[in-house]
Amino acid sequence: MIEIIRPTFVIDKEVCLQNIERMAEKAKTHNLRFRPHFKTHQSAKIGEWFRLFGVDAITVSSVSMAEYFAMNGWDDITIAFSLNILEMGNINRLAASVKLNVLLENREAAEILSSQAKAPIGVYLKIDTGYNRTGIPSTRTGLIDSILDIIATNPKITFKGFLTHTGHTYEARSTNEIFSRQFDALLKLRSLKAAYKRRFPNVEISMGDTPSASICNNFGGVDELRPGNFVFYDLMQHSLGACSMKDIAVRMVCPVVAKHVSRNEVVIYGGAVHFAKESILNTDGKPLYGRIVIEKDGEKQLLDTNNYLSRLSQEHGVIKMTPTNLREINVGDLMKVIPVHSCLTANLAKTYMTTEGEEISTANT
Amino acid sequence: MIEIIRPTFVIDKEVCLQNIERMAEKAKTHNLRFRPHFKTHQSAKIGEWFRLFGVDAITVSSVSMAEYFAMNGWDDITIAFSLNILEMGNINRLAASVKLNVLLENREAAEILSSQAKAPIGVYLKIDTGYNRTGIPSTRTGLIDSILDIIATNPKITFKGFLTHTGHTYEARSTNEIFSRQFDALLKLRSLKAAYKRRFPNVEISMGDTPSASICNNFGGVDELRPGNFVFYDLMQHSLGACSMKDIAVRMVCPVVAKHVSRNEVVIYGGAVHFAKESILNTDGKPLYGRIVIEKDGEKQLLDTNNYLSRLSQEHGVIKMTPTNLREINVGDLMKVIPVHSCLTANLAKTYMTTEGEEISTANT
Repeated sequence: MIEIIRPTFVIDKEVCLQNIERMAEKAKTHNLRFRPHFKTHQSAKIGEWFRLFGVDAITVSSVSMAEYFAMNGWDDITIAFSLNILEMGNINRLAASVKLNVLLENREAAEILSSQAKAPIGVYLKIDTGYNRTGIPSTRTGLIDSILDIIATNPKITFKGFLTHTGHTYEARSTNEIFSRQFDALLKLRSLKAAYKRRFPNVEISMGDTPSASICNNFGGVDELRPGNFVFYDLMQHSLGACSMKDIAVRMVCPVVAKHVSRNEVVIYGGAVHFAKESILNTDGKPLYGRIVIEKDGEKQLLDTNNYLSRLSQEHGVIKMTPTNLREINVGDLMKVIPVHSCLTANLAKTYMTTEGEEISTANT
Repeated sequence: MIEIIRPTFVIDKEVCLQNIERMAEKAKTHNLRFRPHFKTHQSAKIGEWFRLFGVDAITVSSVSMAEYFAMNGWDDITIAFSLNILEMGNINRLAASVKLNVLLENREAAEILSSQAKAPIGVYLKIDTGYNRTGIPSTRTGLIDSILDIIATNPKITFKGFLTHTGHTYEARSTNEIFSRQFDALLKLRSLKAAYKRRFPNVEISMGDTPSASICNNFGGVDELRPGNFVFYDLMQHSLGACSMKDIAVRMVCPVVAKHVSRNEVVIYGGAVHFAKESILNTDGKPLYGRIVIEKDGEKQLLDTNNYLSRLSQEHGVIKMTPTNLREINVGDLMKVIPVHSCLTANLAKTYMTTEGEEISTANT
């Protein structure tokens, strides 16, 4: 057991395993290939936990992350990020040793890939189903056709299918809106699949943000599911209705360095460089960066939203508390804070620690 | 020259040197000890640039940062962070090998320090001059006296003086407000200095956020200046009037992966894990995460605020542009983006690169 003296990203392995098992079962039930996104944990060790549930194909969001996991024994990797043509050298090296898929959404990148791909490589076309970040609108079949024509000139390249990230589920104001956005995306991808099935009999649909993967049950026509955040979950997922509080597997554990009774505030060693500056709106309309869990009579207890991480500077965090709860806190205590966005918080930790005290290395170690 | 193919934190060494020189000169003019804060760059290499201007004492914001710089030859270090009593072991080890100062603001930490300090250690009392994050209000002389009494019981401990971080200058809506906040803090610290001078003839005043250190000129009674951000500056400092655009020494250089003409948007490889999610309000009232510099006819040109980094997800950034400027951008180009908060952006980079192509390692390397 390592003693915690500095801000530490702590994960409950049992809860992670439950989260992985639940999602793996769901994929199986719906006859989907489960290709979880590893950008959330970025850890070879946690990757191994997925193998326990039969996972052998993964998603990452950068070439460097693909390199890290390839080095750690993963040989079927989709880089779910619009092709960065400046990294073609690294992509060719990777494709020579693992089954690699990349994403295209424009002719320029397709031309470079087509002229430079030296090893077998799979291509998904990124479809924008309403998130408006990247991707081709599903109606622009002219652009789709011309990209398919470009990559057809290189026999190393195989067109795999259509992929979307329905990230606009994160902006949903109700679970109903998550259902409707996922269904809308599904209809768009199904019509593409139908249109291209004759020319490409194995054409696939790949979907999979965590909110819709967690709550939706209509996956007719989908081939692959790619959620990532669900392994940890967080306050944002909870606020969307994608998980319950007990499904959140992570805490930032931070030393208390000061108590300001006149303002009902506790100051922790734990700031923007530990939590990342992602917030959701608290019930009082102010930004909330984390919620507080305490132990009382040997039981874990989630404090209400009158107790929350309310400010972050580089290394400091300020926790607002009710006078009653504040009374129980002392300088030198360790505060357990549930983060708003576990992907960004995990990314800032060089290592994680399990609740059993095991240190977990990551790509950032 | 290393080729940039991934998001890269690029610094202009000449501009850094000018920024350091200007601040070092200012400290000299006002007869202040210059103890720059190294949390902004967190790099031993950049630390060496400060030595060129006679700097031999530094400020850091964590024990681990103190350990890093002590290992790299710095032997006079103030940890400007309320004492974390859980790190007393590390603090004693450090204090045994370098001149170390720590901050106190409550009796609990003072008791622990007093009973456990084994090597000579300096103490500043952290005074809250209006930022309301940490520190003792200057009027609470009862608390100040009791902390001084506690530390007086351990002869290893030397009381050095009163230290403040006037971080509320960052919330100022005009340079006038920065002047008045700095002056208000100065008056509070001067009255403390006057009150304790008889008992502690060498009692010091230590101040130094970057906004006030950059623009204020009234330092009567101050002994030490501790700004940090000024070495790089950033959009936030610029919006406060603390620097001009040409003083900003840093850029995130990011590959363009997509162009969406219908939305006037460019998508870059460069997201929240590269920039950090700190924003200021753009002229259109929306969050701005960075501004764009282009090269035109061999000249650097800052684009107006109709061109800006408007959205960040984990690895993606979306840049809004005017149609005219968008026309010049192609997939595979490198976009130069000025960050909002250089401390948080630098913290996410494992290494930096100078404009001359030299790689600079950091504490995070």
